[in-house]
Amino acid sequence: MSQINHCVELAAFPEGIPDKSHFRMGTRPYPEPKDGEFVVRNDYLSLDPFLRGVISGRQMYAVTLNVGDVMFGTTVGTVIASKHGDYAEGDTVTLGGGWQQFALSDGDGVRKVHAGDNPLSLQVGILGMPGLTAYAGLLHTAHPQAGETVVVSAAAGPVGSMVGQLARLNGARAVGIAGSDEKCRAVVDTFGFDACINYKTQDLSTALGEACPDGVNVYFDNVGGSTLEAVLGKLALGARVTLCGLITQYNAKTTPPGPNLGPVIGARAIMTGFVVYDHYDKWDEFQTTCSRYVADGDIRFLEDRAQGLDNAAAHFSRLMRGENFGKSLVVVTPD
Amino acid sequence: MSQINHCVELAAFPEGIPDKSHFRMGTRPYPEPKDGEFVVRNDYLSLDPFLRGVISGRQMYAVTLNVGDVMFGTTVGTVIASKHGDYAEGDTVTLGGGWQQFALSDGDGVRKVHAGDNPLSLQVGILGMPGLTAYAGLLHTAHPQAGETVVVSAAAGPVGSMVGQLARLNGARAVGIAGSDEKCRAVVDTFGFDACINYKTQDLSTALGEACPDGVNVYFDNVGGSTLEAVLGKLALGARVTLCGLITQYNAKTTPPGPNLGPVIGARAIMTGFVVYDHYDKWDEFQTTCSRYVADGDIRFLEDRAQGLDNAAAHFSRLMRGENFGKSLVVVTPD
Repeated sequence: MSQINHCVELAAFPEGIPDKSHFRMGTRPYPEPKDGEFVVRNDYLSLDPFLRGVISGRQMYAVTLNVGDVMFGTTVGTVIASKHGDYAEGDTVTLGGGWQQFALSDGDGVRKVHAGDNPLSLQVGILGMPGLTAYAGLLHTAHPQAGETVVVSAAAGPVGSMVGQLARLNGARAVGIAGSDEKCRAVVDTFGFDACINYKTQDLSTALGEACPDGVNVYFDNVGGSTLEAVLGKLALGARVTLCGLITQYNAKTTPPGPNLGPVIGARAIMTGFVVYDHYDKWDEFQTTCSRYVADGDIRFLEDRAQGLDNAAAHFSRLMRGENFGKSLVVVTPD
Repeated sequence: MSQINHCVELAAFPEGIPDKSHFRMGTRPYPEPKDGEFVVRNDYLSLDPFLRGVISGRQMYAVTLNVGDVMFGTTVGTVIASKHGDYAEGDTVTLGGGWQQFALSDGDGVRKVHAGDNPLSLQVGILGMPGLTAYAGLLHTAHPQAGETVVVSAAAGPVGSMVGQLARLNGARAVGIAGSDEKCRAVVDTFGFDACINYKTQDLSTALGEACPDGVNVYFDNVGGSTLEAVLGKLALGARVTLCGLITQYNAKTTPPGPNLGPVIGARAIMTGFVVYDHYDKWDEFQTTCSRYVADGDIRFLEDRAQGLDNAAAHFSRLMRGENFGKSLVVVTPD
């Protein structure tokens, strides 16, 4: 067995799209486990878009990396030496094993895997974190119903391809968005989506209208930006949008104009489109509660009154300019 | 009683902020009720920001108006003549009575009101549609908890002032955003908010950080645009955002750059920020379900493999350029 642990180090914080110059090969000593530790031979290293954030120099994730550190990454591998009671030689595990041949672990963040007849590499793919992302983000967050239309961006990737397949396995239609005709063919032919739109060559809004004639019930967003905007324009009543990724922003130096939804993801926030007409069943509850509040002086009000219909137009213009002070109304019939 | 019904007609579809030139005074015959109809004397006419959409010439709401029509508007008034079994002279009602002195109605969309000791005009204000907007959009949608911080824009208006007062009556802190020092004083002194920020003179992000040291748990958005963006940047974990209005867009000829959230409101959509690390409790369920799908061929996968750590950096760059085809991974230990 090699006594050297070859690794890849971060050589520089990238701006824009990282290339080879931002990484360099290095070595570390072959790890020797102490009591309560074990050594994993990394078999497969997962490359994930979120790693771009880890090497941004910004504090986006729990992990932060400095120049010279072994590059962070999720791996699946095999225990080859162990002084840990829970892990034995031959066990297969996933862990943050890094861009290196061998990882030393005390078990923190390690998960034993039982690949069965499925390829071991899937444990960092559709049966690993990307798979759980699709599974929980679709089934436990957006709750697609049979017959609904689910749209997903980056549809040829592991998250997107799982989203569409899980949507169909749960009785929904699946429409993908991807960046080449070759990817779109794979999305339809290999992954069985009902349709896939090439956003680089098709007008996304028009194509969505054709692929989703009853609107989009669920949108699983991996990219943000103009793709998100186009899909928002096609939402059906009661749609659910899972904001999962912002690939369009990962390599950008500045956030795009308009509401940046990155903090919505970070905060796990829920944004709800609200139209009062849906809530008239609560009218009596509201009136009973709030009339008493007003009568008791617990709720106060200001009114911005105009006298007579002659003044209605000017008063409306005042409201539109934000110059009103309190509720704007017109006394049509003076007391 | 006057036999003429004075009214205000739409004279032109406005671009930008409407002024008096877009309206004109007119008359209609005094309405004579037939069987099943009644006449309402409009006492108070409500001026609401959403009316800007109604006169945009776009199909934003159920109501659309043409030039020459009596301007649409909600009113509260008194039944002065009735041939309808459910409405008697002297009843007070709210309805879409329009910008006119007298409205004829068959009862459709009419609601009887019992103002009690509270002013009748409140039935088109904080005890009417704007009040229900605040009540349902806050309590039935964002579900503020005791001790949480609720932020609301257009805080001096009827919706905003109700949101903050209801937040405090339910044990939460209330922070307003308004457009003048005078409005901010009213928000704090009259409506009892904990704080109010003048977005025209203060740096909103800094001021929000000071007013909401533990972040924003609930944001009730009436305005959209840069105010929405600033508050999104301060969301606490698990925050809820009620998207209720887009005052910043009502008078704009074009929608602002970046994701336009107007369709999210129209669709009553729910957008959820999703981070997979919150869902590791579903790992076993996910693996059990999806491993079987893969083994049975019901879920397919593509992998984009590089051989050896030497190729990891170039392969990551390929992923960042979107050139990968399927799940990107590195075979660290070749078979």
